[in-house]
Amino acid sequence: MITTDICIIGAGPVGLFSVFEAGLLKMRCHLIDTLPQVGGQLSEIYPHKPIYDIPGYPDIKAQELVDRLMEQIAPFDPGFTLGERVETLVKQDDGSYLVGTNDGTIVHAQVIVIAGGLGCFEPRKPEIDGLLDFEGKGVEYMVKNPEHFRNKKVILAGGGDSALDWTIFLSDIAEHVTLIHRGDTFRGAPDSAEKVHELASSGKIDLVLQSNLLSVSGNGHLKEVSYVGRDKVNITQKTDYLIPLFGLSPKLGPIGGWGLNIDKSAIEVNTFDYSTNVDRIYAIGDINTYPGKLKLILCGFHEAALMVQSAFKHVYPDQKLSFKYTTVYGVNAF
Amino acid sequence: MITTDICIIGAGPVGLFSVFEAGLLKMRCHLIDTLPQVGGQLSEIYPHKPIYDIPGYPDIKAQELVDRLMEQIAPFDPGFTLGERVETLVKQDDGSYLVGTNDGTIVHAQVIVIAGGLGCFEPRKPEIDGLLDFEGKGVEYMVKNPEHFRNKKVILAGGGDSALDWTIFLSDIAEHVTLIHRGDTFRGAPDSAEKVHELASSGKIDLVLQSNLLSVSGNGHLKEVSYVGRDKVNITQKTDYLIPLFGLSPKLGPIGGWGLNIDKSAIEVNTFDYSTNVDRIYAIGDINTYPGKLKLILCGFHEAALMVQSAFKHVYPDQKLSFKYTTVYGVNAF
Ligand SMILES: Cc1cc2nc3c(=O)[nH]c(=O)nc-3n(C[C@H](O)[C@H](O)[C@H](O)COP(=O)(O)OP(=O)(O)OC[C@H]3O[C@@H](n4cnc5c(N)ncnc54)[C@H](O)[C@@H]3O)c2cc1C
Ligand SMILES: Cc1cc2nc3c(=O)[nH]c(=O)nc-3n(C[C@H](O)[C@H](O)[C@H](O)COP(=O)(O)OP(=O)(O)OC[C@H]3O[C@@H](n4cnc5c(N)ncnc54)[C@H](O)[C@@H]3O)c2cc1C
Repeated sequence: MITTDICIIGAGPVGLFSVFEAGLLKMRCHLIDTLPQVGGQLSEIYPHKPIYDIPGYPDIKAQELVDRLMEQIAPFDPGFTLGERVETLVKQDDGSYLVGTNDGTIVHAQVIVIAGGLGCFEPRKPEIDGLLDFEGKGVEYMVKNPEHFRNKKVILAGGGDSALDWTIFLSDIAEHVTLIHRGDTFRGAPDSAEKVHELASSGKIDLVLQSNLLSVSGNGHLKEVSYVGRDKVNITQKTDYLIPLFGLSPKLGPIGGWGLNIDKSAIEVNTFDYSTNVDRIYAIGDINTYPGKLKLILCGFHEAALMVQSAFKHVYPDQKLSFKYTTVYGVNAF
Repeated sequence: MITTDICIIGAGPVGLFSVFEAGLLKMRCHLIDTLPQVGGQLSEIYPHKPIYDIPGYPDIKAQELVDRLMEQIAPFDPGFTLGERVETLVKQDDGSYLVGTNDGTIVHAQVIVIAGGLGCFEPRKPEIDGLLDFEGKGVEYMVKNPEHFRNKKVILAGGGDSALDWTIFLSDIAEHVTLIHRGDTFRGAPDSAEKVHELASSGKIDLVLQSNLLSVSGNGHLKEVSYVGRDKVNITQKTDYLIPLFGLSPKLGPIGGWGLNIDKSAIEVNTFDYSTNVDRIYAIGDINTYPGKLKLILCGFHEAALMVQSAFKHVYPDQKLSFKYTTVYGVNAF
């Protein structure tokens, strides 16, 4: 069991900056995120795109902002559990909480901060026969560790950046790679698309265009994938893995069942301290809602600063908080 | 008369960033500040000190943050009136306002944003006989243009950085410089203090320590300054100028008389859009107050972002506002 002061659900920019604000008040944080990396939407959806409305940065690439935030919170040495989804919350007799993930990690914390953004990013699953039966048994929606696919037969499906990037990457690792795509052109970066076409021309991979997944089958583990080819003919191909990469769609998920007041998939908070209707649970960033709410990164930063002032009284019930400028008092690591 | 969409009172960090947020919504801004430079407290009080809690900047010097904000708002080409104090506000029949300064500048605007921080920085005035009679006639509280003092006899008074810096600077310009200081040691930077002592030893300036200003006199223009010297003897010295530099103290000033709800020198606003009780007047940054308020720069940035959404309806009453990400839509200058 991991023990901390504040358990932050979501390691997007707002969850990350909360570590800094909490640290100034001598509160430790542990963050949990379903994604294998920190940064939330910035790292997952638009890492290489510039953001123009971060105050003091006329422009900054999304991933660079995440990197700077990681640098800024480093002195406070937060804990991270990545690639796991928070599913359960159990209140203890003393008011503290046990937070549990789908992988069995348990975090004990005095305060819960939900910085879950648009919710868990969950893979968009193609609606094909047998898919759910083989999840984790040959059907994977994310490449967490490429080594897993060494010397295996792999079929990828999709037409965006993830599908292109992983096709290129795995072509050096897997025994054989096939990319199946519904259309004729790709949505991903033109140079990645070009590279995939080159790999196909040189025979290093099979590229199957204008084709749709139909079904999967096997015996305990995935064995075959069927698809409708360009000429409307059904084709069945032997494989060890199928990786459908049709993007991620966010869902509020299990948090929706915790008794919080929800309005249109967002958690209602008051603007005094961004607390929810449930004791010791706060919600900040894209996941909350209040009159005037804007889903902007800079607003989440402000919410984090006010939230920690209130969280403090649960972590240090006997201490009085005094307001100090960082310029005057500095940043004192633990 | 200057015409604009939004007149921003105060060119501190929060006033500056408002130009950016307003610009995204195609609203033009004009800023007015009493100080001769932009940046508010950051440029006036601690330009060379690092700030640690600007999100995405593990540390940044205060003046550098101001410089980056100026760069960020440049595409929206704001107007500036510096070195003038806003004193009057007159409502027009159509709901717009005329803002007037102590120097007679008039700005016509649809919306007023008060980003006045701790209020006007006003010079701390020594309590000595005749001082007020010679303000602007030999008594100056700020050096706006050093050339003004070329080949003149100047007496400076004070023991902080401003007094030291201007003594050093004017020693090359004025015919003669005297620095009068109450104490024996200086509060300002040690190397500036050392430089002043060197100038005194080499006879370039007169340094008068442990002495207190007593009175000023003249005939239409300042002629003489009297002070109590180290041996409790009164001394009278001929001069063209007296520059008392005893620091600046902030005052809400004339804004206090505009019918706004005030709580402990701060303007009450609601957190929906940071509007005040008076139509079309908003207050953001250090000058406002609401439950949970923190006087932090990052909070002012958030307030600016929400405020412009509401200001928009006064500037473009017939248009509907749609929310857009800068990453997706960019920053389109006028
Ligand atoms: C294309 C695009 C452009 C944008 N441009 C801008 C812009 O220019 N300026 C701007 O200010 N904003 C912009 N945004 C919005 C900005 O990205 C969001 O406001 C910001 O990401 C919100 O940060 P957050 O930390 O609240 O949430 P997120 O970044 O969404 O992070 C939340 C994290 O929580 C995790 N999570 C959720 N539920 C769970 C759970 N149960 N268990 C474990 N983990 C969970 C998610 O996996 C996710 O990583 C843009 C967004 C997009 C998509
Ligand atoms: C030593 C020190 C250290 C600090 N450290 C930090 C820190 O680490 N982090 C942090 O977030 N904050 C810090 N602060 C606070 C921070 O400086 C303020 O929150 C910030 O300056 C507020 O910005 P503002 O734009 O609201 O107001 P200000 O910076 O005060 O600017 C307001 C401007 O309005 C002008 N004005 C007022 N009235 C009028 C009028 N009638 N007419 C014309 N002009 C007018 C003033 O001249 C001034 O320039 C610190 C402050 C100090 C003094």
